[in-house]
Amino acid sequence: MPQICNFTYDEITVGQTATYSKLVQEQDIQLFAAVSGDVNPVHLDADFAAGTRYKGRIAHGMLTGAIISAALAMELPGPGTIYLSQSLRFRLPVKIGDTITIKLEVTDKQDRRQVVTLNCKAYNQNDKLVVSGSAEVMAPSEKLLIDYPARPRVRIEG
Amino acid sequence: MPQICNFTYDEITVGQTATYSKLVQEQDIQLFAAVSGDVNPVHLDADFAAGTRYKGRIAHGMLTGAIISAALAMELPGPGTIYLSQSLRFRLPVKIGDTITIKLEVTDKQDRRQVVTLNCKAYNQNDKLVVSGSAEVMAPSEKLLIDYPARPRVRIEG
Repeated sequence: MPQICNFTYDEITVGQTATYSKLVQEQDIQLFAAVSGDVNPVHLDADFAAGTRYKGRIAHGMLTGAIISAALAMELPGPGTIYLSQSLRFRLPVKIGDTITIKLEVTDKQDRRQVVTLNCKAYNQNDKLVVSGSAEVMAPSEKLLIDYPARPRVRIEG
Repeated sequence: MPQICNFTYDEITVGQTATYSKLVQEQDIQLFAAVSGDVNPVHLDADFAAGTRYKGRIAHGMLTGAIISAALAMELPGPGTIYLSQSLRFRLPVKIGDTITIKLEVTDKQDRRQVVTLNCKAYNQNDKLVVSGSAEVMAPSEKLLIDYPARPRVRIEG
């Protein structure tokens, strides 16, 4: 079974980087609408969305926020991370079929509370910056090596 | 069919408020794990989570971010809103069965670009502040009254 491991506070260095990518598919828009309750037609209705400034359906902005949060939780620092804060600036729309790559870089460490600050940038497959921001997390003290849990399988029913 | 309508920039006043509530259920944790890719066992594995500081499974922090984004998109300003930025401070964990209520309050308007700033607070059913932050949005110019799209129905398969 594949495993994931984390970086403890002591292992993390300023300048350290990590990346995390996700292809945004039709299903993701449906799932995000279901889980957030944001069922705006610009996300769900192709005819309506064609008449907007975007000329087609776009992903929810906070879906990219969710992908950034997963990059922190899965890659750097990884399991055991405690999320303290996140800023997000939404720069460009994300469309179905875009591949979003999150690039994290550690910019600061505060020893007293083991707080790590990371610069967070989300790019699309054309290397355009779609979301930027900064995260503060409390990094784990203990090394964790855990079995990679299966991603829940979900199905859209209507 | 039920309809949703928005508040245009001109209709919005500093001090205006809105609320939006969501019960966080088992399925939401599964969906958020699927859509973000964050499959950390503190969210998905009851046995693992029992051994953490939280003494049980917790929701992903950014799930509350997603609910805040829905409050902006569905309630104030509502459909046609363009999301510019969001800050989030994660204060307390959210557990399955918690009802999260988002309280939005307009704190500033900038006429030049029709930018509205809103204070965003997320409370649980015990009136504890779980997430706080601030959003900047470009408010719609045109009044929209649209049919309330059905929330996609999804099913967890395993």
